[in-house]
Amino acid sequence: MDQLEAHIRTIPDFPKPGIQFKDITPLVKNPVMLRLAVHQLIHPFVDQKLTAVVGMEARGFIFGSLAAWELGVGFVPLRKPGKLPYDVQSISYDLEYGSAQLEVHIDALGKNDRVLLIDDLIATGGTAAASCELIEKLGAEIAGCSFVIELDFLNGRDKLSKYWVHSLIHY
Amino acid sequence: MDQLEAHIRTIPDFPKPGIQFKDITPLVKNPVMLRLAVHQLIHPFVDQKLTAVVGMEARGFIFGSLAAWELGVGFVPLRKPGKLPYDVQSISYDLEYGSAQLEVHIDALGKNDRVLLIDDLIATGGTAAASCELIEKLGAEIAGCSFVIELDFLNGRDKLSKYWVHSLIHY
Repeated sequence: MDQLEAHIRTIPDFPKPGIQFKDITPLVKNPVMLRLAVHQLIHPFVDQKLTAVVGMEARGFIFGSLAAWELGVGFVPLRKPGKLPYDVQSISYDLEYGSAQLEVHIDALGKNDRVLLIDDLIATGGTAAASCELIEKLGAEIAGCSFVIELDFLNGRDKLSKYWVHSLIHY
Repeated sequence: MDQLEAHIRTIPDFPKPGIQFKDITPLVKNPVMLRLAVHQLIHPFVDQKLTAVVGMEARGFIFGSLAAWELGVGFVPLRKPGKLPYDVQSISYDLEYGSAQLEVHIDALGKNDRVLLIDDLIATGGTAAASCELIEKLGAEIAGCSFVIELDFLNGRDKLSKYWVHSLIHY
């Protein structure tokens, strides 16, 4: 087993029966492994003239802000509706049941920005694809998308076929 | 105006009339100012033999994980109910209207841990006090609490009188 994978805990039947939830809290609690994960997340993109890292609420805030820190660029949070206080651009997207929304401050990014999108996990890819679209609505360019975990059997990468996608641990 | 304060944006009447919301997104988007803020957050505590940093969902994940990274210790997230997948210890606390809950994984901290609590803002201190109590329920010790912003007129510090409290910007 890979060093990083040894610090991911699988929780059966969470949040509902049949789902094998990938718990990243043991990884985040281990500073040596966390450093390894963040450096692997950004490694392919370090020469991509990035201007910002974008991360999604809430676990994406952990890996996203650390990636931004190491790259020496700013961090831009994408949040659930009603959380960001200033004027927002928003996007709705379909979930397995119902729909969800993400928001970003309208002045968070613009046409001179080149962005790395970071999240802990890509499953069906719906949230990541909506996030990329939201970033592009502000005029910014996506340099790539980087995930700690990819659930290969859900083919989320297909929804991001326009983008450079990198992930560290595959299930 | 202080350098950091110049990167906090006040949004009137958010999330409801009469509240002057302190928006930290301009600070987080500026890598130089973010570095300054995180280093100031941890500076008083660097010799406190810390074993972990704890941060509250969701903005506390940004400053907390960066503080943990710079201190070379692990990060432990406190989350809203139903978000953490493994067995949790939880605490309820009163809000102005109604109540709220926070959870932590039962194996996240123990009696050998010495913890720095980090959040972006202390208002009435209810969330911070509940967080400290939750950490102590796991047997860990609080070395201190550090906040980017303190709303002095709400006297939140009074609820943390047992602890060493540090904050960077006062309103």
